[in-house]
Amino acid sequence: MNKGPLITLAHGNGGRFMRELIEDVFARHFGTQQLDPGLDAAPIALDPEMVAVVSTDGFIVEPLQFPGGDIGALAVHGTCNDLAVSGAVPRFLTLGAMIEEGLPLATLETIVASIAAAARENDVAIVAGDTKVVPRGHGGGLYLTTTGVGERMPGCSLGLGTIRAGDEVLVSGPIGDHAVTVLLEREEFDLSGGLASDCASLLPFCQPLANMAGVRFMRDATRGGLATVAHEILRGTGLGIELRESDIPVRDEVQGVCEILGYDPWYLACEGRVVAVVDPAIAAEVEALWRTLPGGEQAARIGSVNGSAHGVVLRTELGGERMLEELEDDPLPRIC
Amino acid sequence: MNKGPLITLAHGNGGRFMRELIEDVFARHFGTQQLDPGLDAAPIALDPEMVAVVSTDGFIVEPLQFPGGDIGALAVHGTCNDLAVSGAVPRFLTLGAMIEEGLPLATLETIVASIAAAARENDVAIVAGDTKVVPRGHGGGLYLTTTGVGERMPGCSLGLGTIRAGDEVLVSGPIGDHAVTVLLEREEFDLSGGLASDCASLLPFCQPLANMAGVRFMRDATRGGLATVAHEILRGTGLGIELRESDIPVRDEVQGVCEILGYDPWYLACEGRVVAVVDPAIAAEVEALWRTLPGGEQAARIGSVNGSAHGVVLRTELGGERMLEELEDDPLPRIC
Repeated sequence: MNKGPLITLAHGNGGRFMRELIEDVFARHFGTQQLDPGLDAAPIALDPEMVAVVSTDGFIVEPLQFPGGDIGALAVHGTCNDLAVSGAVPRFLTLGAMIEEGLPLATLETIVASIAAAARENDVAIVAGDTKVVPRGHGGGLYLTTTGVGERMPGCSLGLGTIRAGDEVLVSGPIGDHAVTVLLEREEFDLSGGLASDCASLLPFCQPLANMAGVRFMRDATRGGLATVAHEILRGTGLGIELRESDIPVRDEVQGVCEILGYDPWYLACEGRVVAVVDPAIAAEVEALWRTLPGGEQAARIGSVNGSAHGVVLRTELGGERMLEELEDDPLPRIC
Repeated sequence: MNKGPLITLAHGNGGRFMRELIEDVFARHFGTQQLDPGLDAAPIALDPEMVAVVSTDGFIVEPLQFPGGDIGALAVHGTCNDLAVSGAVPRFLTLGAMIEEGLPLATLETIVASIAAAARENDVAIVAGDTKVVPRGHGGGLYLTTTGVGERMPGCSLGLGTIRAGDEVLVSGPIGDHAVTVLLEREEFDLSGGLASDCASLLPFCQPLANMAGVRFMRDATRGGLATVAHEILRGTGLGIELRESDIPVRDEVQGVCEILGYDPWYLACEGRVVAVVDPAIAAEVEALWRTLPGGEQAARIGSVNGSAHGVVLRTELGGERMLEELEDDPLPRIC
């Protein structure tokens, strides 16, 4: 199959090929209003009344494209979501691309278009970028690193330090869709049954909570999944967490794959799910609010913070207790 | 040779090994004042009287360590230099690391220490970071992406648009040291004779010029070298550039390697040299100022912007003229 023109090492040498790649692929999709390839550093206009916050994230995934998204959408949503869960609104984004020699230009262009679309969805401007070309065999096709600058209201009190025993834990949707989708796509199993990655912007879920009284903490459940977020809460507060298996939304397709392959859904990566810890007085309100949002139909109250629990405890459907240990060596499919 | 513990895929899974790597290697060297591994997004306090600017850059180099520096120093100085040449003072930095499975932990730690030292030298705080582990054979040991936020005086007028015919071109030191050092180190030629990379902070060279009347434009000569900066000026202004071969500082070792291997020093990457375009009335002052700085002893006035020249012209030592074309396919040793 003819894949058309491929990326060559000359696309990374600083000369004409690189300039044309940046102008014809990146700047064209992002719009010259946003990205001026002639600048060493781009000015960003920030509201002096707000607190500026910054976050960075690297993205590796195989395959680069999968049902429900691609590495470009992951890279934009991932960093914007890190800003959103901290209570901020993303404003500006930078993009670093490490491109492997031999990547079809058409694949790169599709992914860049997806980056541009995800940036529009988050209403962030991509103001600076960089491309490097790595020799064939020294990359995974494309690695991306995004850095986001956002603005947060002064006095936003979100943080692990505000969590109290008795607080409730919520998740915005079914867990593990992303990990299982990528796994199935990579292994070419024929099990997917229409499953797609949950890769999405969490801004609609986080923005209404950022300054709502009683919201303590939000975090997106990415690498390491729900159980890893629970361990971060445990470590940051010294309080235990009890999660109720019967209340945690897991799609049948994800559950089925986990049973066949022996994985625990609690550790599977999501790319569009947020975990929130809130005052029990507002838990029902947050659940109801999330359920009105696209992708939030299965939002649920899944557990509580608990002074007496030692560790992260899963109350099983049969009424038993199981400790969810911190992830150590990799019991998981590598999806990134 | 026993290289000690190696990076494993489990260092990238979001669990305990990854947390310990971030806490024990990255956060320890950077200082917890700077990097709080528990935050999704870090607040950055910017002066509302200044203009915030942002820049990002990816770094790949083989070998990771070389005389005069390593990939860590490159990654910090490179992005800080992009801010410095735009007239800004670097304030905050984020760091994304793509680590290849099998990299010795001791190597990583040395490089992280070098990142921390370079950050101190630029007086920037590393406020956010991310690590990913790529499978063995899918990386070059370590790839880094840094993003910097800096502050620039309002009204700073640096830019290609301010350049006029008659302006002078200066370079802050000998060119090509970085490219030749890395090449020799990689190929294990025994030609270096003590040559070291010029990798360094350009802040001392750029800060005094950022708001000096008559300074038009600064750019660091990295990928593509001096000739590529000249082509950026040509493309951005429509004016020609004439460079005087006899005035461009090139170390004997670099010249010698170029002659043996058939390279042109004008295209070789530097990592600590800035090219400035200034009003001829202040060219001598800038040259004298730069020569007082460590690393600036060979700073020189090397040419001029010229309404009549068509392209980038090298006036040779024998008095002839040679067109320096825009770099196309790679006539250079790949050093990154």
